[in-house]
Amino acid sequence: MRENRRRFLHSAAALTGGTLLAGLTGSQARAAQGADLPLGVPPWTKQLGPGVDAAPYGAPSRYERDVIRRNVPFLTATTESSVSFTPLQDLDGVITPNGLCFVRDHGGTAMVDPVQHRLMIHGMVDRPMVYTMADLMRFPSESHVYFLECAANGGMDWRGAQMQGVQFSHGMVHCCEWTGVKLSTLMNEAGVSSKARWLLAEGADAAAMTRSIPIEKAAGDVLVAWSQNGERLRPENGYPLRLIVPGWQGNVNIKWLRRLKFGQEPWETREETSKYTELMADGKALQFSWAMQAKSVITRPCPEKPILGRGFCEVSGLAWSGMGKIARVDVSFDGGANWKTAALQEPVLPKSLTRFRIPWEWNGEVAYLQSRAMDETGYVQPTIVALRNAWGSNAIYHKNSIHTWRVNQNGTIDNVQID
Amino acid sequence: MRENRRRFLHSAAALTGGTLLAGLTGSQARAAQGADLPLGVPPWTKQLGPGVDAAPYGAPSRYERDVIRRNVPFLTATTESSVSFTPLQDLDGVITPNGLCFVRDHGGTAMVDPVQHRLMIHGMVDRPMVYTMADLMRFPSESHVYFLECAANGGMDWRGAQMQGVQFSHGMVHCCEWTGVKLSTLMNEAGVSSKARWLLAEGADAAAMTRSIPIEKAAGDVLVAWSQNGERLRPENGYPLRLIVPGWQGNVNIKWLRRLKFGQEPWETREETSKYTELMADGKALQFSWAMQAKSVITRPCPEKPILGRGFCEVSGLAWSGMGKIARVDVSFDGGANWKTAALQEPVLPKSLTRFRIPWEWNGEVAYLQSRAMDETGYVQPTIVALRNAWGSNAIYHKNSIHTWRVNQNGTIDNVQID
Repeated sequence: MRENRRRFLHSAAALTGGTLLAGLTGSQARAAQGADLPLGVPPWTKQLGPGVDAAPYGAPSRYERDVIRRNVPFLTATTESSVSFTPLQDLDGVITPNGLCFVRDHGGTAMVDPVQHRLMIHGMVDRPMVYTMADLMRFPSESHVYFLECAANGGMDWRGAQMQGVQFSHGMVHCCEWTGVKLSTLMNEAGVSSKARWLLAEGADAAAMTRSIPIEKAAGDVLVAWSQNGERLRPENGYPLRLIVPGWQGNVNIKWLRRLKFGQEPWETREETSKYTELMADGKALQFSWAMQAKSVITRPCPEKPILGRGFCEVSGLAWSGMGKIARVDVSFDGGANWKTAALQEPVLPKSLTRFRIPWEWNGEVAYLQSRAMDETGYVQPTIVALRNAWGSNAIYHKNSIHTWRVNQNGTIDNVQID
Repeated sequence: MRENRRRFLHSAAALTGGTLLAGLTGSQARAAQGADLPLGVPPWTKQLGPGVDAAPYGAPSRYERDVIRRNVPFLTATTESSVSFTPLQDLDGVITPNGLCFVRDHGGTAMVDPVQHRLMIHGMVDRPMVYTMADLMRFPSESHVYFLECAANGGMDWRGAQMQGVQFSHGMVHCCEWTGVKLSTLMNEAGVSSKARWLLAEGADAAAMTRSIPIEKAAGDVLVAWSQNGERLRPENGYPLRLIVPGWQGNVNIKWLRRLKFGQEPWETREETSKYTELMADGKALQFSWAMQAKSVITRPCPEKPILGRGFCEVSGLAWSGMGKIARVDVSFDGGANWKTAALQEPVLPKSLTRFRIPWEWNGEVAYLQSRAMDETGYVQPTIVALRNAWGSNAIYHKNSIHTWRVNQNGTIDNVQID
């Protein structure tokens, strides 16, 4: 058995240049030992299952009923202005299935009839326009995979509540393939004045969510999107139309988009003055900190997915940057004293989630797991100390510091903060 | 108005190097003409919508209830051995949402309990193994976007039934991000004999689907997968475990995978002898034609999505090849007399769907739309005549010929065959 336990796991070894990994002793104990078919015939082989017409629109297995978005009842006064979190602990790869994309509403989910919906473009334009959905979908379209993260992702940890689970500590992020027309195409069509410096985007929800966006970003990679992972947007993600502002905080990605107004100054809306600003230590507030800086988190193991036994353990997680592509992710098993570079799953796309993985041999002792992302601009994900030095102690938004999972001797995982 | 109708649509023009496109006159007629907010306040802005806890696992808008998989009742004797088709006419980008992935079952959908499920590896191996799902998910994993196409996709058109809709003519294909362990990793773990030439893969469904796969492919890019677009496989797509054999006909991508046996000869199962073989004109049958050759289809416009008016029309579709990356897609508007090269949406990934788009100015006359894919091996999607010359008239599988949509003067689209 010793020989088996020390057997070489080639694909994992390739990642590390030759690390010797213990075999999976649990599987070995169940090895079939040459018998031809010791499994028996399972019940689902003995009877016909449901036909192909059983589910015109499919749903997950009933055995996956715990894989759901979750909200935190004590976090907000109402569920209409609240958040439900993506279960990152259950997800693989980088695409977030539409049913599990986190939701941050400010006036509930607007249930919009797409035939009645209109998009108005006005202000400093030569030709004010009102579009139906059918009009918009005649324009040239593009598809791109982008992450979308709420500026407040990690906010509870910022404020001292160490959330016991990656769903709550990091689950205000998702990643989808978005399709729509470039906003720049609509700007050309409307003839935006060369004197216009800002864009106001307004949603059709009960909060009438409004945000100001500088013209340079508007004329750049912004999409007016109707599709998410192939199908139309989900209601809670802005159906039938939303702004996709790649790499920028979720709040400016206006859902249920109904109005775009061009002007010379920002509109100083509620959500860019009393909210989504950074109150610094000196009492002044930073405004318009839109881009989400490089960040990463280990999603397995995590508090919800403890380690089941000693030996080989693939450590896997997600990294992202609103500034472009992830260039490198390092992982530490000892709380930041030593680092190893993880493998990045190709293709690495700009402003997308990137899956990283690294093999590890857990010896059953306490360990402190961390990941540290670097993006193509050279920016390095900071420590919590560096972040507090920059933002002070009033912060709610933009917590992108290195996160620590403590592995306990029984394989359970705790969210801890190492200063 | 004439000036407006002739306005330059920059982003579309960029695709064609400067084509002058007519404006969207429908939108112009509804232009807001400078009024500040003529839209009125829609009903969904006047009341709070559902809270974030309303849908722990989300669903499409009720206005999208026609976006569903569909089966063809006359096609098969039962719904347990049948197919339901992906609604390609409604999809954007390349990712197929899990709820809309086509389903081809042979004994109904096996409803497998993942805790009871086992994968056995035996035959010509040093160490026969039986794995639980928990065992398998400890192995190093990979994620890749691959298309998966039933060998019989297009089979009804082969046999002379011109299906009026891209859902039925081409909808036995989907494209997902799959995650699992490389089969080669499990082969190393089991110690597959150097004398083994073939692999038998068996499913746990009521059909006990079995197929033989040559060892070279098994040791290549094959995945033993548990995840599809981030979440666990859907029941009808093989939950909790399926083989992903990139680029090869859907039938060998064994769902509900329970057994892998290594041996020296193929097993000549029902599904590789009486089915999934090609009966040639001389009465002999070709066996083991696994790879899906390069193919493409225009998904918009299509019979289900007619053209709504003259003027600018983006023509968009999907191309794929089981041999690697799509290198180029050409589009004809006159039934193959002239061709223009379409833009490919980046990133172009191997053995994945690739979205192509090309701007077009429809003058209201009858037109014959075709697309022709080329892959990185140099293979060019054939005409139906070339395909019939190669396969004869008994064919059911591997219909990858150039497809023709006739645009009628009223904008409706018909599926026609041009010899």
